Formats: sequence, structure tokens, C-alpha cells
Amino acid sequence: MNLFKNVSTFLGFDNEYEESKLVLFGSPFDGTTSFRPGTRFASNVMRSESYGLETYSPYLDKDLEDVKAFDAGDLEFPFGNTQKVLDEIYDFTSNILKDDKTPIMIGGEHLVSLGSIKAVYEKYNDMYLIHFDAHTDLRDDYLGEPLSHASVIKRCWDFMGDNKIYQFGIRSGEKAEFEWAKQHTNLTKFSCEGLKEAVKTIGDKPVYITIDLDILDPSIFSGTGTPEPGGITFNEMMEAIKTMESLNIVGADIVELAPQYDTSGVSNAVACKILREMALIIEK
Amino acid sequence: MNLFKNVSTFLGFDNEYEESKLVLFGSPFDGTTSFRPGTRFASNVMRSESYGLETYSPYLDKDLEDVKAFDAGDLEFPFGNTQKVLDEIYDFTSNILKDDKTPIMIGGEHLVSLGSIKAVYEKYNDMYLIHFDAHTDLRDDYLGEPLSHASVIKRCWDFMGDNKIYQFGIRSGEKAEFEWAKQHTNLTKFSCEGLKEAVKTIGDKPVYITIDLDILDPSIFSGTGTPEPGGITFNEMMEAIKTMESLNIVGADIVELAPQYDTSGVSNAVACKILREMALIIEK
Amino acid sequence: MNLFKNVSTFLGFDNEYEESKLVLFGSPFDGTTSFRPGTRFASNVMRSESYGLETYSPYLDKDLEDVKAFDAGDLEFPFGNTQKVLDEIYDFTSNILKDDKTPIMIGGEHLVSLGSIKAVYEKYNDMYLIHFDAHTDLRDDYLGEPLSHASVIKRCWDFMGDNKIYQFGIRSGEKAEFEWAKQHTNLTKFSCEGLKEAVKTIGDKPVYITIDLDILDPSIFSGTGTPEPGGITFNEMMEAIKTMESLNIVGADIVELAPQYDTSGVSNAVACKILREMALIIEK
Amino acid sequence: MNLFKNVSTFLGFDNEYEESKLVLFGSPFDGTTSFRPGTRFASNVMRSESYGLETYSPYLDKDLEDVKAFDAGDLEFPFGNTQKVLDEIYDFTSNILKDDKTPIMIGGEHLVSLGSIKAVYEKYNDMYLIHFDAHTDLRDDYLGEPLSHASVIKRCWDFMGDNKIYQFGIRSGEKAEFEWAKQHTNLTKFSCEGLKEAVKTIGDKPVYITIDLDILDPSIFSGTGTPEPGGITFNEMMEAIKTMESLNIVGADIVELAPQYDTSGVSNAVACKILREMALIIEK
Amino acid sequence: MNLFKNVSTFLGFDNEYEESKLVLFGSPFDGTTSFRPGTRFASNVMRSESYGLETYSPYLDKDLEDVKAFDAGDLEFPFGNTQKVLDEIYDFTSNILKDDKTPIMIGGEHLVSLGSIKAVYEKYNDMYLIHFDAHTDLRDDYLGEPLSHASVIKRCWDFMGDNKIYQFGIRSGEKAEFEWAKQHTNLTKFSCEGLKEAVKTIGDKPVYITIDLDILDPSIFSGTGTPEPGGITFNEMMEAIKTMESLNIVGADIVELAPQYDTSGVSNAVACKILREMALIIEK
Amino acid sequence: MNLFKNVSTFLGFDNEYEESKLVLFGSPFDGTTSFRPGTRFASNVMRSESYGLETYSPYLDKDLEDVKAFDAGDLEFPFGNTQKVLDEIYDFTSNILKDDKTPIMIGGEHLVSLGSIKAVYEKYNDMYLIHFDAHTDLRDDYLGEPLSHASVIKRCWDFMGDNKIYQFGIRSGEKAEFEWAKQHTNLTKFSCEGLKEAVKTIGDKPVYITIDLDILDPSIFSGTGTPEPGGITFNEMMEAIKTMESLNIVGADIVELAPQYDTSGVSNAVACKILREMALIIEK
Repeated sequence: MNLFKNVSTFLGFDNEYEESKLVLFGSPFDGTTSFRPGTRFASNVMRSESYGLETYSPYLDKDLEDVKAFDAGDLEFPFGNTQKVLDEIYDFTSNILKDDKTPIMIGGEHLVSLGSIKAVYEKYNDMYLIHFDAHTDLRDDYLGEPLSHASVIKRCWDFMGDNKIYQFGIRSGEKAEFEWAKQHTNLTKFSCEGLKEAVKTIGDKPVYITIDLDILDPSIFSGTGTPEPGGITFNEMMEAIKTMESLNIVGADIVELAPQYDTSGVSNAVACKILREMALIIEK
Repeated sequence: MNLFKNVSTFLGFDNEYEESKLVLFGSPFDGTTSFRPGTRFASNVMRSESYGLETYSPYLDKDLEDVKAFDAGDLEFPFGNTQKVLDEIYDFTSNILKDDKTPIMIGGEHLVSLGSIKAVYEKYNDMYLIHFDAHTDLRDDYLGEPLSHASVIKRCWDFMGDNKIYQFGIRSGEKAEFEWAKQHTNLTKFSCEGLKEAVKTIGDKPVYITIDLDILDPSIFSGTGTPEPGGITFNEMMEAIKTMESLNIVGADIVELAPQYDTSGVSNAVACKILREMALIIEK
Repeated sequence: MNLFKNVSTFLGFDNEYEESKLVLFGSPFDGTTSFRPGTRFASNVMRSESYGLETYSPYLDKDLEDVKAFDAGDLEFPFGNTQKVLDEIYDFTSNILKDDKTPIMIGGEHLVSLGSIKAVYEKYNDMYLIHFDAHTDLRDDYLGEPLSHASVIKRCWDFMGDNKIYQFGIRSGEKAEFEWAKQHTNLTKFSCEGLKEAVKTIGDKPVYITIDLDILDPSIFSGTGTPEPGGITFNEMMEAIKTMESLNIVGADIVELAPQYDTSGVSNAVACKILREMALIIEK
Repeated sequence: MNLFKNVSTFLGFDNEYEESKLVLFGSPFDGTTSFRPGTRFASNVMRSESYGLETYSPYLDKDLEDVKAFDAGDLEFPFGNTQKVLDEIYDFTSNILKDDKTPIMIGGEHLVSLGSIKAVYEKYNDMYLIHFDAHTDLRDDYLGEPLSHASVIKRCWDFMGDNKIYQFGIRSGEKAEFEWAKQHTNLTKFSCEGLKEAVKTIGDKPVYITIDLDILDPSIFSGTGTPEPGGITFNEMMEAIKTMESLNIVGADIVELAPQYDTSGVSNAVACKILREMALIIEK
Repeated sequence: MNLFKNVSTFLGFDNEYEESKLVLFGSPFDGTTSFRPGTRFASNVMRSESYGLETYSPYLDKDLEDVKAFDAGDLEFPFGNTQKVLDEIYDFTSNILKDDKTPIMIGGEHLVSLGSIKAVYEKYNDMYLIHFDAHTDLRDDYLGEPLSHASVIKRCWDFMGDNKIYQFGIRSGEKAEFEWAKQHTNLTKFSCEGLKEAVKTIGDKPVYITIDLDILDPSIFSGTGTPEPGGITFNEMMEAIKTMESLNIVGADIVELAPQYDTSGVSNAVACKILREMALIIEK
Repeated sequence: MNLFKNVSTFLGFDNEYEESKLVLFGSPFDGTTSFRPGTRFASNVMRSESYGLETYSPYLDKDLEDVKAFDAGDLEFPFGNTQKVLDEIYDFTSNILKDDKTPIMIGGEHLVSLGSIKAVYEKYNDMYLIHFDAHTDLRDDYLGEPLSHASVIKRCWDFMGDNKIYQFGIRSGEKAEFEWAKQHTNLTKFSCEGLKEAVKTIGDKPVYITIDLDILDPSIFSGTGTPEPGGITFNEMMEAIKTMESLNIVGADIVELAPQYDTSGVSNAVACKILREMALIIEK
């Protein structure tokens, strides 16, 4: 016999690195999560659970088997040192981009997006950011720490500036954050209304999509640290993804699944399906 | 150092008793619950979990920090003696009312509302009752016991009489209860349709609001003893609360959260948010 | 005293066999389930949990107490031998039909329907099949096995042929299955649209209804092995059942509840309510 | 076909009432439980779970199939009225005794034993009581209520008097209870040391055995409302039962299993095995 | 960059196939499990959870890093066809043996051992079998099926014959099985007493070790389908492994972990540690 | 009425700060936990759950009501900045010591002990450290970070030096750590053997006791991030505490309870009882 070590990839991400256009990796970090931790387990669980899915999407009438995608596994982090974690993500993403591949990351808490967005922004500095979330994530700091899950979009704005960030589904935050957003980002409360217009405005400019899965109503996505009732439905998410099909997506991430809070496995299935659909619209 | 004992209040209910208009207390009793007990744990859990919330409501554009509210903790009950429990609630509520404050109670099973509603009714006997629930709660007795979670609204009707009680969201009960309601209460099946008209009719008369959280669909609120699919959505609940903003609310309660049946914590978040919104429309 | 052995039936199914028109039985088999097993526990749990329900349906304004129904308990199966299991179900169903009673079965995985549908089809070979499901179930085989939960409707088609099978709510399957369905079954993606037309077409012909409960959105029904977000709501299911009230239903089953994945008990309540409503439209 | 209603009994308790010497029944009441309720679910769960057991005991080299035993199911109680519950248990037990059968009861909280012990005591007033428990259960009252899970043995002492009660395994209680016991009962702290002597003293006098399962260490029995580490092992419990084999047991109960706190099912298995062994030593 | 697909092996089993002496593989099958399924998830979970362990054993003062071991991942089975599953295991094990490597298998239910033991026996037909278990596993058939988890050792005896099988820890079974064992196997009830003598008798003859983890007391190993209180402690298991250090072990398996029944993760840790220790005594 | 804000303290820790000798506080930090987080929830849960306990200890024949103890609540930490967290703990502990009170801390992960031990050491630099744990905690760093749960005792050694640290119950670590310990600490593998001698050696010198609760066998304490089977029993822990009754204890902590991994609540009860016993031997 000639046997190979046991390989574990996300469903359909079973191509070799060289031949792939899409590169998936996990950033299992939840070190600044203040309320309920656990997003560090998301990437590992999603790989296992993805085998409950089909590769074919009846929403997009496309099949993952037609996409060349690679799964690099998870980065390994020293817990307790936030800056080092972000640097590692930044470096890894930069290397993927150098090889002209598109990075797609599984979080981890939302802060991990900072490392990845920064790396993509440095390659594409006319880039837009589409941000799906329940929370504003626009604090200056959290208990004095500027690097926090609650301030990640503010940190992106630090280098992206005004008019480049679209926020959808937002329904929780401090009053001051909502006020600030009026001047600096395009924030839509509660829903994805206005996404079509955003897509039109962006046109063929490069765009990074960051999906904090808690944008979904916790009825369908309870596996997250800070559930916020009043979110969008799964079908609205599917609709949003279809709306973005025409975009020039240069990077993406899916964050804030904390599998242990939803013991039914539904949240895992939701996250996996969204990742499948995202892969299908990025790699056309 | 000068340190004070560890204090635990619901988010934003951190004012002193004297300065507060709103007084929160818990009635952790589930002694007549026939199916699945556990609502006794609600108030304690809601205090802890409320710190996952923000004080600001994007629904009402109001902030709990602008409300003077006090949390008196939980009443302590002898389990096994239902009448004594109701008497204790009645006495405590009466005392709050004497100090010209508005009581807001966390259950416990729905029967606890009887103690509180009675006390408020004795101060305001032109009072209306708005009742949100999945169940009619109009039985004469349950296995021979007149004091039961299944008969609490009937017991209120005993002293309030016809035309003063509005019931919304009802979708479970005996056929006879639905028939009886046609003559004696304003019962709306399944939804909150007709709430606007009720609010108009009530005008500035005093009104008590009792929210059995199982009016919500169990997709978003599974943490309850007797889940009844087919309920209202969280957004419909938010809408209902906004509709009642103009009312002269003289008492309120939120009952039937049984936290242990929803291990994801979503039901706790839902209950906390509804309590926040209720506080914001009572204390204007 | 004269005492009888402890009896355990589904709510309202407490008549004697002889006097009953409706016969309920459980088929606790999940031996071909490839992903997450557990549907073997459904029938036992549903009997216990049904006592959280009322016998009266405000949806249909009918009462189970007016229906003569019998609960035969569960068949006992040798695990590991799929064909023997199906034979046992077939034989038991045939015997019920010989006594001119209508069988209603609780699964178990969806494959158990094959035994029951075959028996009913042999009595009524102009029969239609209405199939509610998230999955196509139209594979030829699964890892080489033709008797699989993933191929049960294909196995029914083997003897029923074209134009007799209506499929609703389908949102997962291989591309080839969706293609095949276009020629051989009436498949509706995602929803129950077209059910009214189907009911009209079928008229008073005999019809068997098989409900894979995963047609429901996992927000309200997470207790199943392969949850598929994007399903129908509970109210849409209620509407569908009402739509079928006029049909001549000669057999039915409710499958794929796996109680342990939904520790809140909501899925059990959903399954019980659907069984109650089905009983009420079969036995008119 | 001629079918009978679905019967559900504890493993091996499948004889008719008339032919049986042993009569099992459940008292699913936990209305005075102050900490964590749930023992109301024990009897129903134990019936289902007993089918994971074998009827043969390698400990006693005896087989349940050689015992004539009957399962009467559960009594039905009005929650919220403690005295009525105890009366119902008393009446039911008395009727069993009149038919010259031996009652064996599944609780419920420990207070239910009061109804059963009283009935047995009235038939056999030279009776001894052997009490296995982690708790003294010797309070005069609990928050003013004399009928409480925490005072059940004190209530038995009220009519049994001094020197008739043996207590084993006790490791929790108020200081005053331990002091009181020194004068009035034979209390052994922590272990079952002295059981052999007790058995010798009792000789062939009638004896009632009440087993509060929390005498067991929570490592092996975590399914209980108030777990107390430092308890006896399962093998020590088996040993204790064997030690009592020679006794003239005229009644017994097994209380305080709260199945939902041990999701592994181990506590259910433990409770079932203890019930099997008890049945085997009662019915010789 | 040059990246490799994400690899997932058990802790320390990260060598290449060619260089390894020990070959690990998973047989995720639980198709004949009659009571509570779930052992199919064991191998996948053990790989993830093994990273909570250290490679160094203070029990044996040995380190996994000094062992050349390979993890081949899991076999893929068609559920519903028991014979095919056993054939696949048999073939795979035979191939490993042909390459002069030692197979170590993670179940799955105990029946999977039959495939592996048979393959090893054909190479070493003077082989002994040491069997750790709570259950006799000596039935002729289970509900008519000869291939069952409850008859696996009987099936091994079919080809191994008398005096070759040692059974330890047995505490559950039918009376007839215990009787049969007296003539045909060396069965020790409850404990591992006599293991030292067995090791002496076996000497340097080849031996296969099959560990049904439910030999352990469910206090430390609750993650299994049919927990049997009264088992051996973890330290007794460690002691037993050390006792077998001198043996000529030609094959081994560890079966019946069902991770979902122990949500604490303790059972996973126990299983992983036992696998580590077994690897350390096989590969000397 | 005159009402006070809802107070929440550990059972019996209800005295005022000024009058108390013992000061309890929580350090809810788990930011360097590499495997499974969650110890941040321990202190809050222990306060609630302590009300399932009695104040009287039958082990020590002492009562918490005779002890003057104060509960200061929890420190509030910025997650993501480990050094700041340790500084806060150090400062708080120092202030307690300045007021001549004895600090007793609830973790959190084990690293929090570093802040507290350092503060106590600066007051008493002839201090000994008794360390109960399953793990050596003697790494130099973890993935490059010197401040880690896996290196906390090494960090204490940095300032305490050789011959001052006693370690008991250790059964997991790298080989190099065990080797290092031979020269620098008094490490006892697996058990508490030698504790009596240690107590004799220490005499009336000041001593700090740090209890990592995972020293306990996970059968009785499964609520921890990295369970290690083979630990000490609860009774052995009680014995150890009694053995230390004569010591001059100047500080103590109890760490690594992660309540969510033991849904039965047993681990919480164990932790609470150990804290009660510790309080009883510190405040004599």
C-alpha cells in the first residue's frame, strides 16, 4: 500500500495550492472577545460539518466542483498577544495575494479581519469594504484597548477613510457610534436595504466582503457570542450574496461563529452554506 | 481601601431606590408549572446576561442611561405554598406603588402576575390589562386548583370584569376557553393585529402590560416551558412595544423565560432586550 | 383495586383498535443515516411530549377528542438489516389496511416510508404521493446501496412512475437529481407554491402524504440530522395542511425528527402539532 | 389483527396486577424543591431507559424475569397543593397494601416518601426505616413550611419516634440537625458503615427503605438537584443492597433523580440498576 | 509560497506511512447499535481533542515523539450493509499487516473489531485475544442477526476456539452468556484481577487487545451508548496497560466512545490517553 | 420603604469590608488559555451556586457563619492585554494586604495567580507556595509567550527560587518540565502524598495555597478546560485541606473552573465546597 496522511479540508476545497484561485484559511483567535468566547473553534468544526452539505447550490445554480479551491488549514497563534496574531494574519494574507490568489478567511472573532483587510488594502487601495454585522464595531477602544472586536471597522476606517465602507444589518451599538457613522460610513440599520445601490456604485472596483455572521437573526444563527435578535433571515442573506455576484471580490471573510452555543449544529450548517455561496460568487 | 459588597443589577438599573421612578424585582416562582419547570431561574440569569446588551435602543432611539431605575433583587418564596407567594408579591408591589414608583416584575411562571396585577388594580381601578401570550390562560382551574399558571387571566377577570382585558398572540387553549373569551375579553388569535385600535381606545387610562414571552415564536424564544410554534417575530414584538409608547403604563411584567431550555443564550438576550425596551417606554 | 399496565399513547390516540379509523405506529429505524443518526428516538419522545399540547386546534377549529384514533406503539427492528426492516413495515401497514383503517407512521429516517408507501400503493394503485422535504431524495444509490434515506423517493418512483409524485420545499441535492426531477416528478424548489393546483389536480383520488420535517426551516425545527437553512415557516406548513384538508388521504407519515439535536424541545412540539393537524384532516 | 394500546413499563415489570407481589408506581412531584427542580421527570425516563439494562444481575445472581412485578404508571398531581399530593400517595399506597402487595415508588422529590411511609407504617407499626441520603432532611420547616423535601425524615420521626430510623451517607445539613440526630436517629456520616449491625438489630421486623439517590457520589450520579461531592460509590451501594437481602422489606422508594442534569444518561442507568437490585431483594 | 493541504492526525501520529511501524485508522460505523448510536463520531473527535494531551506519559515515562506512527484517517462505509463494512475493515487491516506494520483501530461500535481481529488472526493463528469490556458480547445473535455489537466476541470465538480469549471487567449480560463463558473463555467479572497471570500464560505469543471503553466506570467515561456503573477506574486501566507492556501485541483497537453523550469532553480525553498509552506499549 | 441595591455575594461572605479578615474577589480572565476557554465565568457562577450549599462543614465541624468574610466582586479586565490584567490583580491584592486582610481569589485561568502570589510574596518574602494541580505549569513560555497558563509556576519560581514550592497531584507536562522540577521544586506525581511532611517543614512560616481544581479527577470535576483523568478524589482533597488546617495561610486562590463544560452543576458544587473549606481553615 501507499497511504497519505489524513487530510481534512472544507467540502470541495480539495485542489492543490498551485492550481487554485481561491485560498481558504482559518484564524482561530478570540482573545479580545469580552462576553462569551469560542469562535476559535469555528474553522475546525466547519471543515467537519461541511460534509453534511452538497457541492451544488440551487440558489446560484452553480457547483463547487467547478471551482479550483484550496484549504490551507489554520494559522497557529500565541494566545495573549493580540498584535502578534494580527501580524501573522497580515503576512499570510499578503503571501496569498502575491501568488495572485484570492484569500477567504474563517474567523475567529471579528478583529482577525483587520489583519486580512489591511493586507488586501495594500494591494488594492481603491478597495471598498462591505460589512455585514449586527454591531457597529466602530468604537475607538474597548476598556482602553484599541485592538478589539468592538472597534475593528473603526480600525479599518483609520486607513480606508470616508465613503469606502458600507455597513448592513446593524442593530446594536452605542449611540455615539451610530452618530459617527452618519458622517463616515454608509450604515444601514437592521436590513440590507440599499445593497443593490452600493453594488452599482462600486461597479468593477475591487471589494472586500466581511461577514460577521451575527447579522443573521439568532433564530437561524444562535451559535455566536453576542446574539442580537431582530436580524436578517437566511433567505435575505442568500439574496444579498446573489446581489453581489457581479462584484470584483478581492478578499472575504466569515467570522464570529462560536459553534458550542448552538448544539443543534444549525449554525454550523448556515456558516458552511454561506461559505459555499461566497466561494461560488468569488470564483466565477 | 473602602469597598462595598458586590452588587448585581440589571443593566442600567443602577440608581438608588429614592431617586428612581421605575422599580424592578424578580418573582422566581414556578410552583404550579405542570409541564416543564424552570422559570424560577429567569431573573437571576437576566441580570447577568443583560451585560451583553447596549443601553442604547436603535428601535426607540432612547438610552437606558437616561432613565432612573432601581433593581430590588428577588423576593424569596417558600416553595409549596402558592397563596403565600402571591401575597408576598402583592404586598411588595403595593409598597412600591405607595412610594409612587412604577413596578416592573420578572417572573417566574405567569401566575405571579396575579399578585402584581391585583396590587396595581387596587390603586388604579379603571385600569386596562394588555396581555401578550401564546395561551389563553382562561381556565377556571387546573386539576382542581384555581391558582394556576393556566388560569391567571381568568383570575384577573374575576376582579377586573368584562371589556378591560386585551389578549394578543393567542394560539393554544381549550375550545371552551376560546368560546368564553368571545364574550368577556378582546382576544386576538395568532398575532398582534388590533393593538393600535386598543391603544387608541385605552387613551390615557392606566394600563398594566403583562408579557408572557411565549407569545414569541419559539424559533427566537425557545427558552420556555411550553413552546408553541406559530408565534410572532421579534420585530413584531418591537413594533408592538413602539405602538404602546404613548400609553400610561402603571405596571408591567415579563414572565415565563425558562433559561435552561435554550442553552444558546438567545432567549435570555431576547428577554433582556424586551425588558430594556419596556423600561424605555414606561419611563418617558 | 384493579389496575392496568401503564399505557403510553400519543395525545388523543387513546381509543381501542377496533373502534378506530386512524392507526398510528412508530418505525424507530435510522440505520442508513449517513450523517447524524437519532431519528430512532422520535416516536417515543413524541408520545411523552404530546402532553404539552392541547387537543384543540385553533388553526382548523377541530378537536382530537372528536377523532377515533389508536396508537399501536413501535415496531421492533433488528439493526443492521435494512431489507428486513422494510419488510416488517410493509407487513404491518398491509394488515392495518386490510382492516380498513388508515395508517399514519412516525419515523425514523425517511427510508422507512418506502415500506409504508409500497403497502398503501398496492391497495390504491391510482394513488398520488405528496412529498414535503428539504432534500430531493432521488439518488439511484448512496455509496452503492440502493436502499438509502437519500434515494427513498426514487425507489417509490420505481413502482409509481411519472406524474404521480409532487415534491415541495426542496433545496438540497445533486445537480443531476434536480435535472432528473424535471422529467419525472413535479418538483417545487424552496416553497410550497403550487400545492393548491396539485390538490385540484388530484381531486378525490387517493393520496399518500410523506412529510420529512426538515422541509421546515431549522430556526423552528433544528432537531434533525441534516438541517438545511432556508426552509418554510411553521405557519406555511399549517397553511399547507389546511390546503390538503379536502384530499382523500389514505396514508401518511412524519419522518426525520431527531429529538436529541434540539435540546429545547421545540422540534418535538412542532412535530407533535403537525401530527395532530394531520390526524385532524385525515379523519374528517 | 387484534392490537393493544401501547404499554410502557419498567424493564421486567410486565406482569398483571393480580399475579404480582411487587407494585411499582411513580410520584412525579417536585413542588417543594427549593434549588433545582426536575425530579418530576424521573419515573417516565426510567421506564424508557431501563431497556438499556439486562434483567440478570451478576451482583445478586438473580433475574428479574423470575419476579412477578407490576408497573402501575404514574399518579397525576395538581401542582401547587402539597398536602393533596401527599394524600394521593398515601391513599394509593394503602390500597396496594390492602391487596397484600409490596409498594415500590419512584420519586419525585424526597417529600413524596412521606405519603408512602405513612401508609406502610399504619399497616406495620413496629416498622424500621432505613434512610440513604446525602442530606439530614431533619429540619423542622423550610422557610416556614413544615412539608418540605428538607424535613421529610423529621416528619416521619413525628410518628415513628426515636430509635427506629437509621440514616446513612449523610454529609450535608445544618449543625443543629446533626446535633438533633444524635439523640433521635442513628445517623452515620459520609458512609454506610454500621449497616450490617443495623440489619442484625432489625432482624425480621418489617422495614421500609428510602433511597435518596444523592447519597451516591455525584461522579456517578450527577442527575440530581443538589449534588453533594464526597458520596458513596456505586459498588458501595451494591454492597449495601446485598447486605439488606435478608431483611423483611415491606416498602421502598427511590427518589431525587432529576434526569435533565445528567445529559449523558449515566444517572438514569444508575437509578434503573438500583431499582432492579431492590426489586430482586424484596421479592425473594 | 508552497502550501500543503490541511492534514489532521492524532497527536504524534504524524510520520509517513513508509517509515511507521504503527498504523492508526478509524472505522466510524455504528450500524448495529441497538440502544444509543454515535460511536461513528469517535475517530474524528479523538483526532481534534488529542491536541489537549501531552506526548509524554508520566505513567510509562515514555514519549510519543519517540514512536514512528502513521494515521491513515477513516475508512468510508456504506451505512445499512453490515457485511460490506466488515469486509472493508478486514481488507484494510490485511494490507497493513502485509506491509509488516501493526494496526491500531478506533471504532465505531464493537462489531468493527471482528473485521480487524479476523485479519490479524489469519496472519497469527496462535494468537490470543485480551478483551476489556463491561459486556459479555457473547450472544449468538441479536434479534436474529448474528453480526451484532452484542455477539462480536462470540463471532471471534467461532474461529479462535476455546482457551484463547481472556475477558476482563464484565458486569452485564444474559445469565446464559455468563454460563457459556465458564466453559469457553476466561471471563473475570467486574475487575482486571488475573490479568498478570494471563500475561504470564501468554508469554511471547502474539496477542490482540480489544478495549471496549465501557469497561471504565461511567463516572470517568460517560461518553458511551450503554453506560454500566460499577466499572474499573482510570488508574486501574493505566495499571492494566502497564501490566501488558511485555506482551507481543500484533493488533489492537479502542471502541465504543460516543463523544456526544459526554459534553464535558472528559471521555474524549480518557480515550485519547488510553490510545497514547497503548501506542507506547506496542511500539517499544 | 427603604430598599438597597441587589447584592450578590458568595454564601456567608456577607460581612462589611471593615469588619472582615478574609476578602474574596474574582479574576475572570482566560485570555492565554490555549485549548478550551471559559474560566472567566467561574466567579459569577460560584456566587449563584453557593446557595445550594450549607454554611456548616461536617468535615471540619465549623460554620461559615462564624467567619467574618467579605466578597468584593470581580475585577474588570481589558481582554487582549495580559500584562495589564496581571498588574490590576497585583494592585488589588496589595491593597487588601495593606489593610491586614487575607486575600482569597477565584480565577480565571491559572495565570491570574501570578498577580496575587507576587503581591503576597512582597509582603511575606519567606513565604512558601503549595500548588495543587494536574499540570506542571513549569514551561518557560508557550508559543513564545512567557506569560501563559502553562508557565505560571515557573514565573513564581523566578522570584521565589528553589525549595519554596510544593507541587501535588501532577500528572501532565513535558518530559523536560518533570526533569527540571527534580532540581527546583518539590513535585509529587499523581497524589498528595508527602503533604503532611510539607506541612511539618513549613511550620508557622507564611504560606500561599494555589488550587488548580483540575488536580481533582474529572469524574468529580469535569468543568475545566483540559481535563486529566487519574486525579485525586474529592475526599482526598478534603483530607488535604484538613491537613493544612494548622498552617499560617496568608493568601489563597482557586482557579480553572470552567462551568460550561459541566452542565450538571457538579463541578460548581465541588468548587464552592472547596472554597468554603478553605475559608474555614484560613480564618480560624
